[in-house]
Parts: sequence; C-alpha cells; structure tokens
Amino acid sequence: MKTRFVLINTSHAGNVGAAARAMKVMGFDDLVLVAPRWPNVLRKEETIQRASGALDVLEKARVVATLDEALDGMSHLCATAMTPRDFGPPTVEPRVHFEALLKQERLALAASAPEAKNASNPADDGEAGGGSAPAGQTGVAFLFGCERFGMTNEDVYRCHAALSIPTNPRFGSLNLGAAIQVIAYDWRQALGGFGVQDATPARVQADAAQVAGMLGHWEQALTSIGFLDPAAPKKLMPRLNQLFNRAQLTPEEIHILRGVAKAMIETAQAKR
Amino acid sequence: MKTRFVLINTSHAGNVGAAARAMKVMGFDDLVLVAPRWPNVLRKEETIQRASGALDVLEKARVVATLDEALDGMSHLCATAMTPRDFGPPTVEPRVHFEALLKQERLALAASAPEAKNASNPADDGEAGGGSAPAGQTGVAFLFGCERFGMTNEDVYRCHAALSIPTNPRFGSLNLGAAIQVIAYDWRQALGGFGVQDATPARVQADAAQVAGMLGHWEQALTSIGFLDPAAPKKLMPRLNQLFNRAQLTPEEIHILRGVAKAMIETAQAKR
Repeated sequence: MKTRFVLINTSHAGNVGAAARAMKVMGFDDLVLVAPRWPNVLRKEETIQRASGALDVLEKARVVATLDEALDGMSHLCATAMTPRDFGPPTVEPRVHFEALLKQERLALAASAPEAKNASNPADDGEAGGGSAPAGQTGVAFLFGCERFGMTNEDVYRCHAALSIPTNPRFGSLNLGAAIQVIAYDWRQALGGFGVQDATPARVQADAAQVAGMLGHWEQALTSIGFLDPAAPKKLMPRLNQLFNRAQLTPEEIHILRGVAKAMIETAQAKR
Repeated sequence: MKTRFVLINTSHAGNVGAAARAMKVMGFDDLVLVAPRWPNVLRKEETIQRASGALDVLEKARVVATLDEALDGMSHLCATAMTPRDFGPPTVEPRVHFEALLKQERLALAASAPEAKNASNPADDGEAGGGSAPAGQTGVAFLFGCERFGMTNEDVYRCHAALSIPTNPRFGSLNLGAAIQVIAYDWRQALGGFGVQDATPARVQADAAQVAGMLGHWEQALTSIGFLDPAAPKKLMPRLNQLFNRAQLTPEEIHILRGVAKAMIETAQAKR
C-alpha cells in the first residue's frame, strides 16, 4: 500500500534526519515536508548526520508550501495527535486502526471486481471524478505536526483518524523521531512485517535415550564424588532430569556433560 | 513486571537522553549504564536536553563498571542484536517473544501456590539459593550494545533471547534511541498498554427518520436549483442516501444540511 510520511512545520533538522532513518529501516521512502522551519533542511549537516545511511530518502523527499500539495494521491489521512480535541476524527490506537484499515482494504479489493461495471458510469449525478483512488488502491499518509505544538486543529479535521500512541498518562512527550519510528514499525508489522532471520542454526535435540544415558553417567559420577548417597538419594536425579529436559539438550551438550561426568569419576578414582 | 534497560558502552550522550525519554513515555524508569564512554554522561548538557522531561529517569539511573553489576535482581535477559551469530540464544521478534514470556509468567504464577510447599525445601541437592527470583516475579532486562558494534558475543551468550526488530532487509540500521523506543513500546503494549483516551466525545447518531427528513428537504432543494429533474431522477437520491449513511450523521449535521437545503430553496425563489 502506498505510504507517505508528511512532516508539518518541523523545527529541528535532526528530527528530519531521524525521520528518514526511521522510515527506511521499516522500508518506507516517501517523505514530504510541509513548510519546514529551514527551507534547506534536507541539505543541512545535522539532517544528513541523523539520517545515517538513509540519504536516498532525503534525496527523494519533497519540500512543499501547503498540506494540500503534500497529499496528492493519498486517500486515507492519519493525524498523529496527543492532545484531546472536542471535535474531529476518532482517536485510535495505531495497531487497532491499522488492522481495521487493512481489513477494509481487503474487503474493497474483493468487492471491486464485480462492482466495477456499475460504478464506472456514475451518470450525471454530480460526481466530479479526477484524483479519486480506485477501490483497493488506498494511499495512506501519516501526518506529524511540529515539535512544540503538534498538529493544528485545522489539519487534524481533514484526517480520517487521529492516531494516538498509548503512552504514560503522566508523561506522553514522545520525541518526533521516536513517534515516527513507532508508527513506521507498527504499520510495517500490520502490512506483514519483514520477519526475522534466525541467526542460530536449527538445533538438533538429543532424544530421551541420550538424556537418560547421560543422567545414568552423572548418577555414577555424583556418587563417586560423594554428592549423591545411593542409600538416601532424595529427589536429586529426578530434579536433574527435569532441569535437563527444560534445557532441551543437543547431542553436543550431552557429549560435554558426559565429559564432565567422566572427569568427576576419574578424579574420584585418582584420589583413592 | 520489574523491567530494566541496560545500555552497554554507549558512546553518544544524546542517545542516553533519548533512552530516558523513550522509557518514560512508556512508563519505565530503571536505567543502568555499563561503562559508558563518558562517565559523567548522566549530567552532560546533551543528555539532559534530549531527555526532555525525563530528568527523573536520569536522576535514578546508575552507572556501573560491569554487566554483572547491572543485572542484580533480573532473571530474564533479552539481548538486542541485529547481526547473526552462529551460537547463542534464539533470535526472536519482540512481540512474539513478549507474548510467550508473559504466558510463561502467568503459568508460573498459577502454579506457584500449590507447588510452593514442595519447592521451598530443596533438600541437600546442591541448590544454593540467594538472589533467585521466586516464580512469578520475573525481572526482565533489555540489553543494548554500543552504537557502532552492538553487543559483544560474550554479553549475548548470557541472555535468554536475542530480540531482533524486524527491519528492511537492505537497511537495518536502527538508531539506538529508536530501538529503545520500539522495545519499550512493544513491551508496554504486551503488558497491557496504557490505552488511549478518546479525545472526541461520544457522538450521538441521527436516527433514520431524521436522515430521511433531511433527504426529503434536499430533494426539494436540488429540484429548486435545477440539479435534480423529478421526471428523470436517475439514482441521485439513493446515492446521496448511501453517502449520508456512511457518514453516520449527527443531529447537528442534519441541522447544518437542512440549513444548506433551505438556503438553496430561498436562493432559487429569490431569482424567480
């Protein structure tokens, strides 16, 4: 789904750089700045520094004068707002809203094929056409206000939803870059995410017989060093069995543990 | 659940400030710095500036020399690591891991009451006691390595899980503060979240009769201004009906729309 991040009246160059980086790590690259404090903010040293390797996002970014210019091709506008307003779009948690939005999109896609014929000729009933997004081609724009005051009411009123990141009721002051990171992350996750590559190779687990054999070896070893009294074993071996079950031992670890048992026994024998 | 953020060998003062702020907005306040580059980092100007209002987190924070000192009372250690290692704890997505961890915790809590009697007397089978966390009192520590190189293998090997934030496969370079924000957010959400206060008051929806009355008024108005031809109405009124149904009109909006209709009619009458 087409995704755009729109920063309105941003003051700090560092935040523009942080925004580019936050977007790129989540695979987004469409950044538009509406009337930033510094017109040359995309080329400022601090911006470039904080963007780290996301220079391509800065190069592609546009600076425009009005919110209107920033919203071409976008059909669903999400405000980000912390402060309550007595009027406007519903305040929603990002995750909850993203799920609903994507469900709607799937329904629209499913419905668009059979309905296309009827909808394509809207007669002369006043529909202007032009620029409207076909069903299933939603463009989502996330709007972020300036650091000190957030979004203006006027801008929030244009939006379909006001996203509110659930924060500490006594300290809701999210840094702009951090807020963009959270929204970009949640939106990417909602879109299916990138997944995570498991760094560790698949572990082969030792089977129960190998574990039992190793435990037998240990029982012998613990007896040899005088830790286990065969006449009063209490629950020691079952406890160790439980411990090693939880540990989901590999064959290599069985080998190591048997080595330990062997060394215990040899040491005990040498001392005699 | 007890939660601690542990920053190891952090280089940039700004990131320490950002960490404090990111933690506080998600309701966490236990920050420990292990051998930071600047021993006085908690009092540096840049730290304080980036922490914004989270000065209390900085004041409570500790600087220690070794990771061991940072982990007292913690029972579950989460590394954060981007680069694959051929050995070590499983690499997991934060959300997936947090869900599993909390499920485990709930099971432990449920089981702790009946099992307490048996477990409290571990006989003389070598259990040392001291500092071990009772079931259901997990302390979770999130460990973050230095900006340039991340965590050392040695530190990762101590951990129970290696959290990996799913990022763009071609650009996984998360800023340290941004990573802390994402982890703090996901963990807080997993713990139940803060919820969001809907800023807009509950909307009263107009009933069908009010909508139908308004539509009748509009039909009359659209005819009066020559937009609707009663002899060939096509589907105009049903389309408007559908549009206004989707809009879930309030009584106030019905009032506004009736005002518009009234003005149309008056204008048409004045022109005759």
